[in-house]
Amino acid sequence: MTIHSQFEGLEVGYDVPALPGMREDDISTPCLVIDLDALERNIRKMGEYAAAHNMRHRAHGKMHKSVDVLRLQQELGGAVGVCCQKVSEAEVFARAGVQDILVSNQVRERVKIDRLVGLTKFGAILAVCVDDIDNVADLSAAAVAQHSTLKCLVEIDCGAGRCGVSTAEEVVRIAEAIDAAPGLIFGGIQAYQGAMQHIESYEDRRLKLDAAVAQVKVAVDELQRVGLKCELVSGGGTGSYYFESTSGVYNELQCGSYAFMDADYGRIRDQDGRRIDQGEWENALFILTSVMSHAKSGKAICDAGLKAQSVDSGLPTVYGRSDVKYVKCSDEHGVIEDENGVLSINEKIRLVPGHCDPTCNVHDWYVGVRSGKVETLWPVSARGKAY
Amino acid sequence: MTIHSQFEGLEVGYDVPALPGMREDDISTPCLVIDLDALERNIRKMGEYAAAHNMRHRAHGKMHKSVDVLRLQQELGGAVGVCCQKVSEAEVFARAGVQDILVSNQVRERVKIDRLVGLTKFGAILAVCVDDIDNVADLSAAAVAQHSTLKCLVEIDCGAGRCGVSTAEEVVRIAEAIDAAPGLIFGGIQAYQGAMQHIESYEDRRLKLDAAVAQVKVAVDELQRVGLKCELVSGGGTGSYYFESTSGVYNELQCGSYAFMDADYGRIRDQDGRRIDQGEWENALFILTSVMSHAKSGKAICDAGLKAQSVDSGLPTVYGRSDVKYVKCSDEHGVIEDENGVLSINEKIRLVPGHCDPTCNVHDWYVGVRSGKVETLWPVSARGKAY
Repeated sequence: MTIHSQFEGLEVGYDVPALPGMREDDISTPCLVIDLDALERNIRKMGEYAAAHNMRHRAHGKMHKSVDVLRLQQELGGAVGVCCQKVSEAEVFARAGVQDILVSNQVRERVKIDRLVGLTKFGAILAVCVDDIDNVADLSAAAVAQHSTLKCLVEIDCGAGRCGVSTAEEVVRIAEAIDAAPGLIFGGIQAYQGAMQHIESYEDRRLKLDAAVAQVKVAVDELQRVGLKCELVSGGGTGSYYFESTSGVYNELQCGSYAFMDADYGRIRDQDGRRIDQGEWENALFILTSVMSHAKSGKAICDAGLKAQSVDSGLPTVYGRSDVKYVKCSDEHGVIEDENGVLSINEKIRLVPGHCDPTCNVHDWYVGVRSGKVETLWPVSARGKAY
Repeated sequence: MTIHSQFEGLEVGYDVPALPGMREDDISTPCLVIDLDALERNIRKMGEYAAAHNMRHRAHGKMHKSVDVLRLQQELGGAVGVCCQKVSEAEVFARAGVQDILVSNQVRERVKIDRLVGLTKFGAILAVCVDDIDNVADLSAAAVAQHSTLKCLVEIDCGAGRCGVSTAEEVVRIAEAIDAAPGLIFGGIQAYQGAMQHIESYEDRRLKLDAAVAQVKVAVDELQRVGLKCELVSGGGTGSYYFESTSGVYNELQCGSYAFMDADYGRIRDQDGRRIDQGEWENALFILTSVMSHAKSGKAICDAGLKAQSVDSGLPTVYGRSDVKYVKCSDEHGVIEDENGVLSINEKIRLVPGHCDPTCNVHDWYVGVRSGKVETLWPVSARGKAY
């Protein structure tokens, strides 16, 4: 077994689920496993797509929360930087040397604003979203106090139903306030249509995105009319990036899940009606689990329950086999229907998580696997960084 | 502000959400807050109940994953030790000096069995559950190899539908194998009825538990007939402990959620038809969240989404107020219905989590609060210890 120096002295199971050099079958479960070949192919593919469409790709770090995955997205996929949702995530990426960071979210509390502005000391360009004119004065005061500069994007709610303003008039009013505020730079528009990403039909998704693009275009035009140029018009996810890329309005993508994929995203359809996990993107992320009880016929119990995943978007699916099915999830157990009794005790199963983002957030490690062997361990660097 | 020495040098927000001495209003959100007074009352109450009914209470550490909460359960509530679901959790409790530990679950992998037996070096009594005769030889071999002793309970599936055997014949067969195996001690029966805990009606729960008790009694009697005494007959949760306590068959409880409570448990009814969070137990655990956007009237956006909780058992409820309602949860946001526009930016709200166990598992810290001030920070000691 090859033990990399940084893992010497660690106990498999207690500190880490695996050590480099191990066979996949010897990994302690449940844990997250990454198929490194599949991950690299996904990352290269998105990079090539963005380049071919003259789009910047700002990889969404909220999904993987990993400086190692981001490094690959920058090196192999040409990502221009990272976006994330929390100041504490931005702190992790800034401390890892990332030079272009957008918090694609509002930051309102005084202490968080101070921390955000403080990250410019790492040499990074820091940007944040604004949807309330009252926020502008607070952001400006912190930037001035720290002799620093913060880029601000106005967030438009183009269908997600969360943060963001709705009208071009509000966009212009906030943008003008940003432009006039010392220490702030108006950086453009944040417009992520989150609610449509998981609609199964490509055409239905296109209709939602067309509406979003139209809404964003009105705002961009209005801003131009008052002399404010949008350096960035940023948005787009794994279920929509082709619409933003060909919109003529957006110039930056924010895709996250394409790199890992999950069961919920896998179900949506591409232009040809094919599931997007059957051609467009590969499953690169798995929850590795083991059968731990088979006391009843027809039903195997595995060791991956709610503490190893989030089931908000449905149960995980069993990868690569149709003879068994994950049918129930409790705190520490999963029930796998095994009608023909094909599963044996300690057998390893790869599950495709229902929803990758909150699933990654419960784990400390990604176990990187290639050709059935553990190649590397990556910490989930920003795990738990929710505040 | 009082800064306890162990927190010196930590940054609020990056490392920890709060520091002792702070006002509750200054805590960085989202994070877990414990009402220490309520927690202590819950713990004393369960301790008094168990003592009055001559029951041992083995507190379930899988719920809180905290050596600090367990210490209170032992000191104030007379808990005899801890149970947990994973070897990695048992390692945390053993290393904290807990002397009586039951892994209320199966342990099948060789490396995990070795780690489990290895914990006896901390001086703790270690017990584990068995539902497959093949497991007995593996456990015995590890105990013999480490010159150690492991206590084994046979697990009965009395309605949870997960691990455990179903018939008294199987119980006896496995118990005899344990009794005959070097390094193992037959310790009794594990019989936790997990599926009934959340049934709303007290009478419906009683019916399920009556069936479980009858099933367990047959097994205990059969064991006695072949000369095997059950030192422990262990089970019972927050929705059923009064049934096990008066059964004449069980002698040990394994309650967990009573200490913190959650929205899902809160909805079940006591003998008088009253919700159990309105008298029987107090809400002691909250997700503290802040309003971060209110760009649309009628709808406030807060900073606690799927990365701050598990919604497997439903959405969180807003504690202590009926004028606003948490209605939607996405990765980093919660949507709060605020028809009358009463919420303001940065306003703090206490949420009662839908399901405490997997919610605790995404957080690094419990912020202990008394009379509106932060009194202590407790690590979620076994957070992420799923393998």
